[in-house]
Amino acid sequence: MDGPFGDISTPGRLADPAEGVSPEELALAARNHGLPLEALRYDVTPPGLHYVLVHYDIPYAEADDWQLTVGGRVRTALALDLAALRAFPAVTHRVTMECAGNGRARLSPRPVSQPWLVEGVGTAEWTGVPLRALLAEAGVEPGAVEAVFTGADHGVERGVEQDYQRSLPLADALGPDPEVLVAYEMNGAPLPPQHGHPLRLVVPGWYGMAHVKWLRDITLTATPFTGFQQQVAYRIRQSAGDPGEPVTRIAPRALMIPPGFPDFMSRTRVVHPGPCVLEGRAWSGRAPVTRVEVSTDDGRGWYEAELAPADGHDWAWRRWRAPWTATPGSHVLSARATDAGGATQPLTQPWNRGGFANNLVQRVSVYCPPDG
Amino acid sequence: MDGPFGDISTPGRLADPAEGVSPEELALAARNHGLPLEALRYDVTPPGLHYVLVHYDIPYAEADDWQLTVGGRVRTALALDLAALRAFPAVTHRVTMECAGNGRARLSPRPVSQPWLVEGVGTAEWTGVPLRALLAEAGVEPGAVEAVFTGADHGVERGVEQDYQRSLPLADALGPDPEVLVAYEMNGAPLPPQHGHPLRLVVPGWYGMAHVKWLRDITLTATPFTGFQQQVAYRIRQSAGDPGEPVTRIAPRALMIPPGFPDFMSRTRVVHPGPCVLEGRAWSGRAPVTRVEVSTDDGRGWYEAELAPADGHDWAWRRWRAPWTATPGSHVLSARATDAGGATQPLTQPWNRGGFANNLVQRVSVYCPPDG
Repeated sequence: MDGPFGDISTPGRLADPAEGVSPEELALAARNHGLPLEALRYDVTPPGLHYVLVHYDIPYAEADDWQLTVGGRVRTALALDLAALRAFPAVTHRVTMECAGNGRARLSPRPVSQPWLVEGVGTAEWTGVPLRALLAEAGVEPGAVEAVFTGADHGVERGVEQDYQRSLPLADALGPDPEVLVAYEMNGAPLPPQHGHPLRLVVPGWYGMAHVKWLRDITLTATPFTGFQQQVAYRIRQSAGDPGEPVTRIAPRALMIPPGFPDFMSRTRVVHPGPCVLEGRAWSGRAPVTRVEVSTDDGRGWYEAELAPADGHDWAWRRWRAPWTATPGSHVLSARATDAGGATQPLTQPWNRGGFANNLVQRVSVYCPPDG
Repeated sequence: MDGPFGDISTPGRLADPAEGVSPEELALAARNHGLPLEALRYDVTPPGLHYVLVHYDIPYAEADDWQLTVGGRVRTALALDLAALRAFPAVTHRVTMECAGNGRARLSPRPVSQPWLVEGVGTAEWTGVPLRALLAEAGVEPGAVEAVFTGADHGVERGVEQDYQRSLPLADALGPDPEVLVAYEMNGAPLPPQHGHPLRLVVPGWYGMAHVKWLRDITLTATPFTGFQQQVAYRIRQSAGDPGEPVTRIAPRALMIPPGFPDFMSRTRVVHPGPCVLEGRAWSGRAPVTRVEVSTDDGRGWYEAELAPADGHDWAWRRWRAPWTATPGSHVLSARATDAGGATQPLTQPWNRGGFANNLVQRVSVYCPPDG
């Protein structure tokens, strides 16, 4: 035993090549949950279908006695209860949120952590106070460079006891678009416990680690934040010693609603022969999605999908559709998004040690039985 | 390839002793989800925290054009929309529901299916029409022996294409306590998609497979139902050829809210030295829970927990509490329920091929660091 937590809290590791999913990965998969892909049919994901990733425990929190403090390099420190927050003009943004580790379980070697396949995503309408309105109320002091956000969930991670904390550069915290929210409603109702009740940060376009749940403090700092979730976790690195690059905005991705019906255990889809419409959603946290292509031959050939017109929800997914005529046999279907910045999805995934920011194209296995 | 679905839909299997959790088990674990154990704190489980198990896809269903048919051996066949169902007097029951496969992933050898640890459970307030009221309206014909319930979810399982179907003996379908409901509300709101929107069966005291979701037909039959989910799946058997016994009511179980705080990856709990209160819930679908005992030394010694008084919710879990003084070192905490019928939980789990109706005592690993 090295630190105070001994061998219960060990460094990150990679799975051995022949190692199946471990009991501890299964324990995370049983607690957290993804979006069942048929739920891509909803513009806004109903509660319970949106992905959830909780680092430690869901804290017990009553809205009635919750207090958000705003301090550090501000002219006037604030302590705001829910009523005070609701007194600010409310803003609603529709936001597609994706876990930074989405796709991790498809990597080889597999980083041992929450073992997402492709379903760590969801879209919700978040209502709250713009962070820039709160910071204007407090008054940003000269020399402030970052805003540090502290949540109430408490635990140990790789030997470090902590409340979950993340920061944003001040320019991002104050930006008008995307506009960061301190949110108290999800889809028009108070936040559910697992989504941060009663308050969470929402940072449109960024991976989920930025959207601090159970938010209880915002502190402006004169130096960049060096806490665990900023400097140790959520870095794109090739080796344990590499300082790495921070995980920030969501890479483009398209997902398909798996067509037909599934086998219970293999999840392979059965599609009867004939014409059908493939459909799904596509998003990017970097720039609007401008193109979706579909492949029905395991990535060899691609054709254009029809992308739904822009609807003003620039930080949420867009619907796409493409026709396909199923023929008897086995098929692998895929979709691929490209955004206005030219970023697209790889067919072979660049690897990083944390398994972050993957956007390898989805592969949907379909079996089309002989007709009749 | 044997049947029409070839090798995409294969017979049930057991994992090899050294086999980790397989990709297909992980795919089920990522879709379905359990109750994060800290959510045992709520009398009624908030949406999104209650366990969910969907065999195939969540069907798309609009309440406005949903129709429930009642037929077979009845005097008057019925076709009821939601408005017609809401015109019957409404009844609400608080029910603890548990997946029949809860605990499966802890068995050795492990049946390959949804890999639950202990978290396949939840408690909700279900509101709807008593099934016996619907069947009285239709009029039960002489010779009816079972009621067969058909849901809208469609898929393949071990080579058999099917809508999800289950039956109940007529005596259970008509019984006053537990009273079976055709439910249209969960916790006072319309059913969420993943819990059967707009209609599901609720069978208090029975494992989850009986509570048919997306209910669209009830048929009274003159002979016992022999469909897949009744005669092939959900049987307690020792070998593939054994006809087995049907899975019915929930065996007693107690679960503890894991004390202290967790390590992210190992989920081991950290509890500081000193007195604390262990608490959790206990339930049985066979008879009221009359006793909960706690062990803090990995099952060697047991002492009595204090069970909350009966509150009239006979088919829902009861809260329990027990004091513990944490001392530096490693500990394994457990709780064990006993019901009025004398049934209790085993310390070593009897095995069956489907991994059903397990109620092995929970083991919560705790590390108590040296003080100061």
